[in-house]
Amino acid sequence: MQKPSIPKGTRDFLPEQMIRRKYILQNIEDVYVKYGFLPIETPAMEKTSTLTGKYGDEGDKLLFRILNSGDFLSGSSEEERNDSRTLLSSISEKGLRYDLTVPLARFVVQHRNDIQFPFRRYQIQPVWRADRPQKGRYREFWQCDADIIGSDSISNEADLVGIYSEVFNRLGLNEYILKINHRKLLEAVAEGIGMKDRFGELTIAIDKYDKVGFEGVSGELKRSEVPDEVIQKLEPFLAGRPMNSESINWWEEQLPDTDAARKGIKDLRNLLEYLDALKVEANIMLDGTLARGLDYYTGCIFEAVIPESGIGSVSGGGRYDDLTGVFGMPGTSGVGISFGIDRIYDIMLDRKLFGEVSTNSSKIIFCHFDGNSKVQCMKVASKLRSNGIACEVFPDEKKIGKQFDYANKRGFRWVGVVGDNEIQNDEIALKDMASGEQKTYSTSELIDLLK
Amino acid sequence: MQKPSIPKGTRDFLPEQMIRRKYILQNIEDVYVKYGFLPIETPAMEKTSTLTGKYGDEGDKLLFRILNSGDFLSGSSEEERNDSRTLLSSISEKGLRYDLTVPLARFVVQHRNDIQFPFRRYQIQPVWRADRPQKGRYREFWQCDADIIGSDSISNEADLVGIYSEVFNRLGLNEYILKINHRKLLEAVAEGIGMKDRFGELTIAIDKYDKVGFEGVSGELKRSEVPDEVIQKLEPFLAGRPMNSESINWWEEQLPDTDAARKGIKDLRNLLEYLDALKVEANIMLDGTLARGLDYYTGCIFEAVIPESGIGSVSGGGRYDDLTGVFGMPGTSGVGISFGIDRIYDIMLDRKLFGEVSTNSSKIIFCHFDGNSKVQCMKVASKLRSNGIACEVFPDEKKIGKQFDYANKRGFRWVGVVGDNEIQNDEIALKDMASGEQKTYSTSELIDLLK
Repeated sequence: MQKPSIPKGTRDFLPEQMIRRKYILQNIEDVYVKYGFLPIETPAMEKTSTLTGKYGDEGDKLLFRILNSGDFLSGSSEEERNDSRTLLSSISEKGLRYDLTVPLARFVVQHRNDIQFPFRRYQIQPVWRADRPQKGRYREFWQCDADIIGSDSISNEADLVGIYSEVFNRLGLNEYILKINHRKLLEAVAEGIGMKDRFGELTIAIDKYDKVGFEGVSGELKRSEVPDEVIQKLEPFLAGRPMNSESINWWEEQLPDTDAARKGIKDLRNLLEYLDALKVEANIMLDGTLARGLDYYTGCIFEAVIPESGIGSVSGGGRYDDLTGVFGMPGTSGVGISFGIDRIYDIMLDRKLFGEVSTNSSKIIFCHFDGNSKVQCMKVASKLRSNGIACEVFPDEKKIGKQFDYANKRGFRWVGVVGDNEIQNDEIALKDMASGEQKTYSTSELIDLLK
Repeated sequence: MQKPSIPKGTRDFLPEQMIRRKYILQNIEDVYVKYGFLPIETPAMEKTSTLTGKYGDEGDKLLFRILNSGDFLSGSSEEERNDSRTLLSSISEKGLRYDLTVPLARFVVQHRNDIQFPFRRYQIQPVWRADRPQKGRYREFWQCDADIIGSDSISNEADLVGIYSEVFNRLGLNEYILKINHRKLLEAVAEGIGMKDRFGELTIAIDKYDKVGFEGVSGELKRSEVPDEVIQKLEPFLAGRPMNSESINWWEEQLPDTDAARKGIKDLRNLLEYLDALKVEANIMLDGTLARGLDYYTGCIFEAVIPESGIGSVSGGGRYDDLTGVFGMPGTSGVGISFGIDRIYDIMLDRKLFGEVSTNSSKIIFCHFDGNSKVQCMKVASKLRSNGIACEVFPDEKKIGKQFDYANKRGFRWVGVVGDNEIQNDEIALKDMASGEQKTYSTSELIDLLK
């Protein structure tokens, strides 16, 4: 007999995990909705042509491919069958979603006539990557993205910062830090220190500042034969500062007066003004080292971290100027963020932030002594349910001790018991499993208590 | 440039569709929770060994297979590469979930030490089948199942009938008919008319009664050389009757006094008693023709239909006595139901039952004349949001006409406008897009109006 198991890197979610995950997802979704974002969903499978070439060579290798149905070899030559790479394209036309961004771009272009721009959409769905599984890295995991497509205004960025603030506050992660940088500031720094023509190299180096510190960054630059005085000029830009008028002024003073610098500074000042209008109080660091995949972002860049969690970022995002170009709709600007649910879950579990979240659907379970008292329990349960109180009746006629055992293992606080006395008086004996106390209530008293 | 599209038989869900689907799913989930069911989720991918051999030969062909990562051909011989069927097992070890029942069985066995029995679980996830796509049949579609595992009691069936009743009433599908039959009644009928040794044949024939009527059924039986007098004896059992004491008595009188008959009649009487205790008023037909894949169900069988919808059943279910045996845990009884979301959606759309369901996340959009009035809009939006009212500010500084156009196309009823006058008086001009009327409010008045 096979011992059942699931594929490496995938997970079952048991009820307790599910209820906690739903708590996180519901909070994020509620905030997205409050800011006017609209839900969409896309298929788990996309055409190979939609997916390939969007995530780099490494990404292409991590795509899960779906085998064509039926006699999948029929269209291939004997020669093709000698090599996995050549055979691949003739036996597989579909792959599993790798992220939510490329499907969004495909969706926006495909449905451009059915949606209104600016388009504020959110999407909460699993994605799949054939990565080597390790702690905190799964082959199936959830992304929850919010993006605004088709608007250049920085007020969109302000809304996203507002979302960050409210989501983390709701989840009890109040000490979050939101790092912000701007692609144009990075460019202006490169100009200012004379590394404009080595921009890619520079940003790859400073992006590691978080992990390797200034020593590491300067070491890497020295090895690339960047002169000491250039590295010295760079150093002050690597320190993070709380984002406010002063720190923006500091950047303005330090940077050369170029188009890039002016654009970056203007955007950040705009962002501050809008955050003030929205009354958003967020813990924002203006962080000159934040780059997050430079090829992609063209304006503001976001990253949220929970200090002392031992976990990297729990959310990232930014503005990208040409999301949909690859699907034939150039020049559409977008800005978005994505929360990493699995990491947030781990931190919240670690910090016991699920305290109030129940691990049961029902508030109470009813136990009984025989067929008659079971029927009486069902009558009471029916009244509770029509008052919106979730409850259940132990279904089998087993010894009351077994029923209490079950209630205990399920973690119920309230157990209702109905015996002959209670039937006679139309009452319920209610046991508080926390204190061990037992008291008798009428059905309507019980409803008031549990409501 | 490629014109983007999605794989055949899959769907994108646009916001309006998503909001309506969420409305259905949320109602079903709320009712599941009210009856004490706990959520679980399982991976989209299962090992091939979990999936194959569970759905018959036809089902195995409809499984979507995931290609192994990397050099998938490396483990196969040249001979294997000549035939799709022999190559399949060496290049694919995983497949996409085909339903939620086999994953549930696998889950229950795998986590038997971490869950408490009776285990009431619900699961709402997509499944994938490589079926030929046609109207109403998709390759990716959603199932929403509720099952109770590890309890023999008919009070579980009563809870499920209660769920049917509440779900359909919530969705406005009050005219639903819930068909119920019992495997043991089918067996007793076969005994009574002398076809016990041709049970499979008999049930395959009468299961078609819905579509082909008595003419069709009797024609099929005649072609199988079933004597006329046997068919005559069968006929009265094929009529559906409202389920109540009288119809159950009728069945008892008509059936031979066998173990099967006694068990079936006892269960149905029990069910009636429990439905009475739960105060469930459901439109139940006791339908002797209902079989739904006989190999599977061993007790009560359910099927829900919406009359005059032109669509077959919208939900099915029943009791199965050995769900987990195939994974090494025999003798565990279960009973469950599953709602077909896509069909329910189509019927509700057809009958305009989404009337009250908004197609926007926001209740109001704010429009403005310049940078100043936009900032004022954001201040008002912030106050609305902190009062729990979802809203948005048009992000770009465009002509007010364009902003109204957008609000109109998005289907907003309420548009807030802030100009110099309104800034001065700390007010908002509110336009009702339905009536065209415009009135001026303070922010707190606006909050009261929209709350």
